[in-house]
Amino acid sequence: MKKFRAKAHSNIALIKYWGKENEEFIIPKNSSLSLTLDALYTETEVSFIEDENDGDIFYLDGELQDEGQHKKLSKYIDIFRELSGVKKSVLVNSYNHVPTAAGLASSASGFAALAMALNKLFNLNYSNEEITKLARRGSGSASRSIFGGFVEWVKGDKHENSYARKIDDAQWDIAMIILVLKNEKKEISSRVAMKQTIETSPLYNAHVESCEEDLENIKQAIKNRDFITLGKIAEHNAMKMHATMLSSNPPIIYFKEDSIRAIEKVKSMRAKGHEIYYTMDAGPNVKILCRKSEIQCIVEELKKEFDESKIIISDIGGDATVKEIE
Amino acid sequence: MKKFRAKAHSNIALIKYWGKENEEFIIPKNSSLSLTLDALYTETEVSFIEDENDGDIFYLDGELQDEGQHKKLSKYIDIFRELSGVKKSVLVNSYNHVPTAAGLASSASGFAALAMALNKLFNLNYSNEEITKLARRGSGSASRSIFGGFVEWVKGDKHENSYARKIDDAQWDIAMIILVLKNEKKEISSRVAMKQTIETSPLYNAHVESCEEDLENIKQAIKNRDFITLGKIAEHNAMKMHATMLSSNPPIIYFKEDSIRAIEKVKSMRAKGHEIYYTMDAGPNVKILCRKSEIQCIVEELKKEFDESKIIISDIGGDATVKEIE
Repeated sequence: MKKFRAKAHSNIALIKYWGKENEEFIIPKNSSLSLTLDALYTETEVSFIEDENDGDIFYLDGELQDEGQHKKLSKYIDIFRELSGVKKSVLVNSYNHVPTAAGLASSASGFAALAMALNKLFNLNYSNEEITKLARRGSGSASRSIFGGFVEWVKGDKHENSYARKIDDAQWDIAMIILVLKNEKKEISSRVAMKQTIETSPLYNAHVESCEEDLENIKQAIKNRDFITLGKIAEHNAMKMHATMLSSNPPIIYFKEDSIRAIEKVKSMRAKGHEIYYTMDAGPNVKILCRKSEIQCIVEELKKEFDESKIIISDIGGDATVKEIE
Repeated sequence: MKKFRAKAHSNIALIKYWGKENEEFIIPKNSSLSLTLDALYTETEVSFIEDENDGDIFYLDGELQDEGQHKKLSKYIDIFRELSGVKKSVLVNSYNHVPTAAGLASSASGFAALAMALNKLFNLNYSNEEITKLARRGSGSASRSIFGGFVEWVKGDKHENSYARKIDDAQWDIAMIILVLKNEKKEISSRVAMKQTIETSPLYNAHVESCEEDLENIKQAIKNRDFITLGKIAEHNAMKMHATMLSSNPPIIYFKEDSIRAIEKVKSMRAKGHEIYYTMDAGPNVKILCRKSEIQCIVEELKKEFDESKIIISDIGGDATVKEIE
C-alpha cells in the first residue's frame, strides 16, 4: 500500500487576507502576501484504506478526530476523488509542529501539507502552482504555504485563476519572532469575523481597495530588499485590517492587554534603533518582523518583558515537500 | 470693575468629532453629538485690566500660565475684541473641576466657560446658540459644552453655520461612568492625530460618510428614549473613529492595556445583563454609558476590577451659565 508524507510550513501574511468574494471556492476580496516560517509546520501522511466501505479516517497529533472534523475532511478529499476518478477512502495522519501549545493557526500548513500529499496519493501530478488552488479550497491562506519565502496569493475571480506564487525566497537578512500571548479559544472564529466585517463595516471596501497599493508597494520593497519600507507597509496593512474589524457592528477587537503591551514594546525598541515591525492576525499573538542578524539581541530585550516560553523564533521556511514512505 | 463668572460642563461625544474641514475656523468634517456631564466642569472669571498697556493675564487653577498659553489665549480673546470694538486686556482666572487628576479633556468646558464669560464682559449679548460658534473657535468640542443634555454640533461649512444645539435634556434614566486609566501625557495630541488620520488613513472618508447615518439613527434613538440602540450606535461610532486612527500610517493606537481590560469588563458585564456601553476618545480612558438607576450596582462590579479612585460617576450636566460677581 502506497503511503506519502508531506510537509508544509505556516505563513504569516504581511498583506492580509480578510474577506471572501466567493465563500464556496474561497476566492478572496484582495490579493495577499506572506512570509513562510520555518519553525511552524505540519507533517501529514496519507494512504488509501483497503476496505472501500470504510470512510476516511483522520488522526491529528495522534488523536482520532470527531465526526465534525471527519465530515469536513471527507468533503475536502472529495475534491481529489472527483478530479482523479478514484473513489477510495483515505487514512490521514497529521502532526502540527508548533514549539508550544500556541493556538497558532495550523489550518494554513495543515491544508497545504494535505493537498501536497493527496496530489501524490491520487496520482494527479499537478504542479505546485496548481496545488496552491487545491490547498486554497481547504483554507484560503493554505494556498500560500505551498511555497517558501515571500508568497503572493493572486486573488483572481474563479477557482482557475486564484492561486499562489513565490515572489522571492527571502534568503536575505530577515526572520520572525512570534509572541504567544493567549491560548484561550477565540471568542469569534476568523470565518465568522470576516463575514461580520464585510457585512457591517462601512470602512471595509476602502480597505480592500487600498490593499492593491499596499501589495504593489511591498512587492517593490521586496525587489529592492528594502526592509524598513517592507516593515512599515506590513504594520500599516495589519492595523488597517484590524481597523475594519474594529469598525464592524458590533466591534470586533482581537487586541488583548498583552497584545497592546507587545506593540508598545516593539515601538519603544524601534525608537531605540531596532529595525522591528509588528503584525497581528485574527488573534492576540503579535508577530515581529526583524533582521535575522539581530535576533539574539532582540530576543534578550523581549525577555525582559515576556516569558521566554512565549517567544518563538523562526527562520524563513522553504517550499512544501512530499515523498513516498515505507 | 465688572467681573463675570461662567460655568460650563465637559461633554463626551457619542457621535465623535474627528477631523477638521477648515483648520482656522474649526469647521468639522462631520456633525457630532454629545452628552454633557455634570461631574466635570470649568469655572472661569474674567474682568478687564485697568492699565491698557498690560497684556491679557491668564491663571489656570491658580497658576500663572506660560507664554505659549498666554499667546493662545490672547489670540482667542482678539475675536471678542474685534467683535465688540473694545480693545481692553483681560484677566482670566479659570478652574477645572475634575474629581481626580484625570487628564480628562478640559478644553471643551474651558473654552465654553470662557466664551460665555467673554460674551458678557465685552457686552456682546449673543444668544447661547451664537456663543457655541465662538466657543468652537477655541476648541471644536467646546461648542457642545454650551448646552446641557444631548447636544448636536451641526457641522455647517463656514463660521456662521457651524454651531451646536440641544437635542434633548437627557433627564431620563441615563448616567455616565468614567474610568480614569492613565495620567501620562499623550504621545500624540488630538490635533496632530486628527491631521495624520485625514492625511494617511485610506478609511477616513468612508468613516466620515457613515457618520451621517450614525447621527440620524442616534437622534431617532434619543427621540424614542431607546437606550440600547443609543448605546450600540455610540459604541460602534467610537470604535469606527479609533479604526480611522488605527488605519493611519503609521498607526495611531490610543488603547492601553487598561483600556482593553475595561472594554472586556463592559462586555462581560453586558453579557450578564447590564445595559452598559463603552466609548473612548483620543486617550486611554474608557467612558461607560449606563442607566442612572443601576449606577451603584455597576460601580460595585467595576470596583472588583478597578481602584475606586479611578471611577468617576456623573449625572447629566445642564446649560453653561454666567453671572456678574462682586
